[in-house]
Amino acid sequence: MVGGGQLARMTAQAAIGLGVTFRVLAGSAADSAALVTHDVAVGSHLSLPDVAAFAAGCDVVTFDHEHVPGAVLTVLESSGVLVRPGPAALRFTQDKLAMRERLAELGVPCPRYAPVSSVADVVSFTGGCWPVVLKAVSGGYDGKGVWVCSSPAEAAEVLGHGIALLAEEFVPFRRELAALVARSPSGQGAAYPVVQTVQVDGICREVIAPAPGLDPELAELAQARALRVAAALGVTGLLAVELFETTSSGLLVNELAMRPHNSGHWTIEGARTSQFEQHLRAVLDLPLGSASAVSPPGSVTVMANLLGGTDPDIYDRYIHVMAGDPAVKVHSYGKEARLGRKIGHVTVVGAPGEDVAAVRDRARRAASYLRWGKDDGD
Amino acid sequence: MVGGGQLARMTAQAAIGLGVTFRVLAGSAADSAALVTHDVAVGSHLSLPDVAAFAAGCDVVTFDHEHVPGAVLTVLESSGVLVRPGPAALRFTQDKLAMRERLAELGVPCPRYAPVSSVADVVSFTGGCWPVVLKAVSGGYDGKGVWVCSSPAEAAEVLGHGIALLAEEFVPFRRELAALVARSPSGQGAAYPVVQTVQVDGICREVIAPAPGLDPELAELAQARALRVAAALGVTGLLAVELFETTSSGLLVNELAMRPHNSGHWTIEGARTSQFEQHLRAVLDLPLGSASAVSPPGSVTVMANLLGGTDPDIYDRYIHVMAGDPAVKVHSYGKEARLGRKIGHVTVVGAPGEDVAAVRDRARRAASYLRWGKDDGD
Repeated sequence: MVGGGQLARMTAQAAIGLGVTFRVLAGSAADSAALVTHDVAVGSHLSLPDVAAFAAGCDVVTFDHEHVPGAVLTVLESSGVLVRPGPAALRFTQDKLAMRERLAELGVPCPRYAPVSSVADVVSFTGGCWPVVLKAVSGGYDGKGVWVCSSPAEAAEVLGHGIALLAEEFVPFRRELAALVARSPSGQGAAYPVVQTVQVDGICREVIAPAPGLDPELAELAQARALRVAAALGVTGLLAVELFETTSSGLLVNELAMRPHNSGHWTIEGARTSQFEQHLRAVLDLPLGSASAVSPPGSVTVMANLLGGTDPDIYDRYIHVMAGDPAVKVHSYGKEARLGRKIGHVTVVGAPGEDVAAVRDRARRAASYLRWGKDDGD
Repeated sequence: MVGGGQLARMTAQAAIGLGVTFRVLAGSAADSAALVTHDVAVGSHLSLPDVAAFAAGCDVVTFDHEHVPGAVLTVLESSGVLVRPGPAALRFTQDKLAMRERLAELGVPCPRYAPVSSVADVVSFTGGCWPVVLKAVSGGYDGKGVWVCSSPAEAAEVLGHGIALLAEEFVPFRRELAALVARSPSGQGAAYPVVQTVQVDGICREVIAPAPGLDPELAELAQARALRVAAALGVTGLLAVELFETTSSGLLVNELAMRPHNSGHWTIEGARTSQFEQHLRAVLDLPLGSASAVSPPGSVTVMANLLGGTDPDIYDRYIHVMAGDPAVKVHSYGKEARLGRKIGHVTVVGAPGEDVAAVRDRARRAASYLRWGKDDGD
């Protein structure tokens, strides 16, 4: 796996269970996954020599992020390395304009969009109706590279960065959803229950699985659409489709990711097969595991991200959190706690019949206490 | 953790989640845990210099087996190392006579026993009623060091080994059970549901959690007794109490283990807190996790051990097993498949209302296929 972040770290845990030899290309020996993986190579994911040397020892190469240049992957692939997902699929996560165009071709509903290179372009796109969303065509993640602009002046500021931009309509959504599916090279697909994600400042803070009160037909539509996109784009491994549920109960695709995804961390405890094991099974072309939730119908699993606070060490707070709720699961990524950085997550599998609000509260309290040493409602 | 077997390997997975730095002292770099752990020391658990050098880098030392000599541990402990469980507790797993005497003092029902050093001792112990069980006072595990003798001649053969022996009555049991509990240095205890274990030739083949049809009062008694023994013996970490359920619905203690135990592998998927995380929490004096089963009342989780067959590689068989039952969980220990050796296990969490026999059948089929490449009823 290229990339040494928390996704690689959690994939390493799944690889141990499967008895699959797992190797990580990390940018630094202090990376989250590098701290716990037996077989670590340190190098740059941007460097063809580094990636090629790493790949030489692997049966299959996969990723914990989308930032390996397409040119590097194309060389690898043409030299016979199994790259999963391959560059032809990954391109649609690296180039948001290509993604929008391909989804439009497939008839998949998306927010209205247009490439823009001047304030005049943006003003013309809005038709006078603000705000508008500007997105970096490439390189964005976790809210980086996304700007909500309320005026031509704000748009001008973003245009001043000098990067390729896309304008998208500002969607008045009811909530955000995510559909996570897996697809193997043999073409087998598996779909997890559709979840609700709660984002603050573009960063995922909470995931509720399955999405409470979601119309079953809409859930099925989201799953079917994600599977169709995975097949059409030739995805191998996981595909996470971030969606807006509009105020008129429509579904619009916001973003795509082709790797384990924050919206799927709940599956470690909450699904029969974790997304990390599923990704390994998919890229190894093994039969996919059951993606169904372990909790009975009507109950939910809630994942809350743990963001860094002002104290670099969360371990001292384990005592309070574990004593307060013995069934909460703490996942630490071994990362230094910088303010606002994702350094871990907590998961609560609701008891049968337990109220959604109560499960959310348990997860939120645990994450908040780990972050701040108190329950501050954050 | 001293010892590089599968218990250390699975504890390593739990340590990653907790963000706890985990170090293993393995006998060889090819040991099950050494293959996947970032921080591996290679050395002998019998050597004071090796163990002391290893311990120097650890906040707490714990074990995946009971074979570190008491003298080594006593030196460590007196030099200020936190050894959990400590030598005073571990002694009762290393010396079965001491264990029996201590349990007798505590009023814990055990099979009738006596130390024996001659055929005359054995004949006298039996009172003419055969068979009788002879056990090595130290060093036995997985059926090794246990002999069922049906005649004085058979007893004489065992006595010929020249090791310290204990005679125990042959208990006509209904079935075997195990009670797994955790105890922290602060004195907190947690008890997992009592399970049924199915042994063949002294090796655990299958675990059903919770034990089907077990009288709830008997289950409670087993848990309470295990917690009482853990406290009385000063155990820190896990204590597994292997029990006979007698034909008259009594409970007799067969063996004790103070570490993660084969009878607790089902907890990885089947309980809120896996035994491996629980052991870490206990030895680190963190609050213990919920030990309750994830499956609703009336349904079970079944774990079947995967023993080595004649093919050294099981990976090729993953396809069949995973395609046949997408919800079966395969755990491979990365060990070479020698005939009869424990090289992995499979777990099936039963669906609500699923018949115990059906869940057992799913687990047995998967393990059998992985072992032999066919379902041979083994």
